[in-house]
Parts: sequence; structure tokens; C-alpha cells
Amino acid sequence: MRRPKIYLAGPEVFLPNAVEIARIKNQLTTEAGFLPLNPMDNNLGKPPELRADRERFADLIFQADFEMIYECDAIIANLTPFRGASADVGTAVEVGMGIMGGKKVFGYTNDFRDYAIRALHESEGPIRDDGEWLDARGWLIERFGLTDSIMVDRGVRRSGGYDVYRSNGPIDDLTGFKVCLGYARYVLLNEVS
Amino acid sequence: MRRPKIYLAGPEVFLPNAVEIARIKNQLTTEAGFLPLNPMDNNLGKPPELRADRERFADLIFQADFEMIYECDAIIANLTPFRGASADVGTAVEVGMGIMGGKKVFGYTNDFRDYAIRALHESEGPIRDDGEWLDARGWLIERFGLTDSIMVDRGVRRSGGYDVYRSNGPIDDLTGFKVCLGYARYVLLNEVS
Repeated sequence: MRRPKIYLAGPEVFLPNAVEIARIKNQLTTEAGFLPLNPMDNNLGKPPELRADRERFADLIFQADFEMIYECDAIIANLTPFRGASADVGTAVEVGMGIMGGKKVFGYTNDFRDYAIRALHESEGPIRDDGEWLDARGWLIERFGLTDSIMVDRGVRRSGGYDVYRSNGPIDDLTGFKVCLGYARYVLLNEVS
Repeated sequence: MRRPKIYLAGPEVFLPNAVEIARIKNQLTTEAGFLPLNPMDNNLGKPPELRADRERFADLIFQADFEMIYECDAIIANLTPFRGASADVGTAVEVGMGIMGGKKVFGYTNDFRDYAIRALHESEGPIRDDGEWLDARGWLIERFGLTDSIMVDRGVRRSGGYDVYRSNGPIDDLTGFKVCLGYARYVLLNEVS
């Protein structure tokens, strides 16, 4: 039987231990019965003269990641907040690609707080007496009890059939990743782990 | 001739003047020869009892926005940074949907700085002597001379044929939006304005 392919999205490529995390995620994905497609593998082993041409390097990374997403069956996305109140935007673009491409998208966050709490905390703002929350700039804070923007949280839900899994830990904690692998085993392989 | 449909993505729905901005954007889009599809129109006129059921309301907004993107010919996205170093993640998901759906995606930002400058500024970090930049957490800063993450900036470029347009102004400034309408007139209508 053909092994389903899972694209492993998330901001781990920017962490100091990026190579090690990619290796572990690839191994866990393989052990769960899938073929891992890992964007970190698109960043490695490029010759220095290519890396020096930054815009061309960026285009090549985009193309390689896009092709992985195009051919995958599912995505597991690390949606832990990254440089702000929300998930990494690169990961968010990939989630959108997956949703429109009919892929199953599973997601997890290592910050279990509601988005609204994080957004309020990030800028501290007034809370309007009609129940809506505004940040310090006067911008409305989405308050739906979700992990992130509607398009992220509900997008994952609609495409994969599961809510974004919440736990609490450092950005590279793998608890949620393993839970999503379990979801994927059930949805793609009809197996319960 | 059928008027092409353009989905108007961006964080303006969260601004205090959301209704007014949506009205102006719809008008400009119509005057440029297109049919505007505006997510703000999905948020309005909902009865209070629906608004009170937050999760169901979120699902309805997701579904309505998704359908607009599914049926559009192009997207114009406001990619100005929102609550962090990057574009609004909801907008980023929509950009990803557009790219995978084969839509033309045009984008603009009202913060002309490179992403790397903003990310460094946001957390202040060391700059490694091999030329790479790290933020204060030790996380790598993408430094490709782009407006945002590769997946956002190069995604727009690849799908629409234009780079993200940069200018400088408040988040609701419409300079870039008008430029993108010009791009769209050329690409979708073969007209130069």
C-alpha cells in the first residue's frame, strides 16, 4: 500500500536545533506509517554561490515547498505563536494552500491560551462595555474562544475534521505533533494508535 | 463581458473604520472594472442570537470567506504587519488559498521595511558574524530582502507576476491598494490605467 505523504509545516526551520527537530519529526512520521515531506530538507545542502543570490534562493525554497504541499496528502502544522500574537505567517500560507488543495490539515499549538488573551496581552488595550475587546491601537480583537484567527483555527477544523490541539510547552515541544500523527493515522489509515 | 471578481483581503475588518474602508475599497474596485468580494460584507447584518454563539459564528464567517475566495479570479491582499513582525495570519491563509487555487494574488504593504529589519527590531538580537541574523531568542531571521516570509512574498510574486508593492503609511492607507488595482487591470483586463 502506498504510504500517504504528510507535509510538516512550522517555524522550526528558524530554530537553532532545526536540523535535529526535522530529523526527529521525520522519524516519528515514518514510524507512524507515513512518508514525511519536510521543508527543512529543501534548505540543506545548497551550494554557497546559490545561497549568496538571496532572491533566487528564496524563489527556489518557495517552489520546493509549494511542490511538497501540492503532492502531499495531509499537513501537520505547528501553529504555536511566532514573533507576535499569531502563528508563523509562512505556516499560515501553507495551511491555506492545504485547505484549498483539499488536503487534510492537522494543527497544534504549544500555547494553550485563546488568541484573544494573547492579543490583549501583547498590546494591552481597553475592553469595551458592549463585550468586544480592543487592543491599545483601538483594533478589534477576534474573540471566539479559538487558538488563532478564524481562518487558521476554523480552516484546520474544516479541512481535517479536528480542532487545533492545544498543550503548553516550548515552541519545539512535540506533544501536539504526536497527537496530530494519531489523528492522521485515524483519518488517512483508518488506524487507531 | 463578465466582470472579474476580486477578493479584498486584509486586516481592515478589525479597524474602527472597517465599514467605511470596505465601502471605499468596494467602490474603487467597482470603478476599476471588477466585482468586489469583501469579507466585511460577511460580518455585517448578522442577528444578535447568532453573534452570541461565537463558535458557530466563526464557522459561518470562515465558510463565507472561503466561498468568496473559491469563486474569485484574483485577490488583493493588504500585507501590512499586524500585531507582530508579519502580515495578519488570516490574510496569509487567504493568500495561500489563492495561490493553490490558481488565483492571481496581488499584495501591498504600508510598511516598506524589509521583514528582516522589522523582525530584528521587534526583539533585538545578536547578528552572527557569518552574516546570518538571529533574534533575541536565538531564532534565525529570514534575510532575503523581502517584505515578509518567503511563502508570503514569493507566493504573491509567483501567482500574480508582481512583487508585493511597498509604500509607507498607516495600515489603512490605500496607495498600495490602488497600485494593485492597476496591476489587476493589466493582468485581468489587459488594460493600462
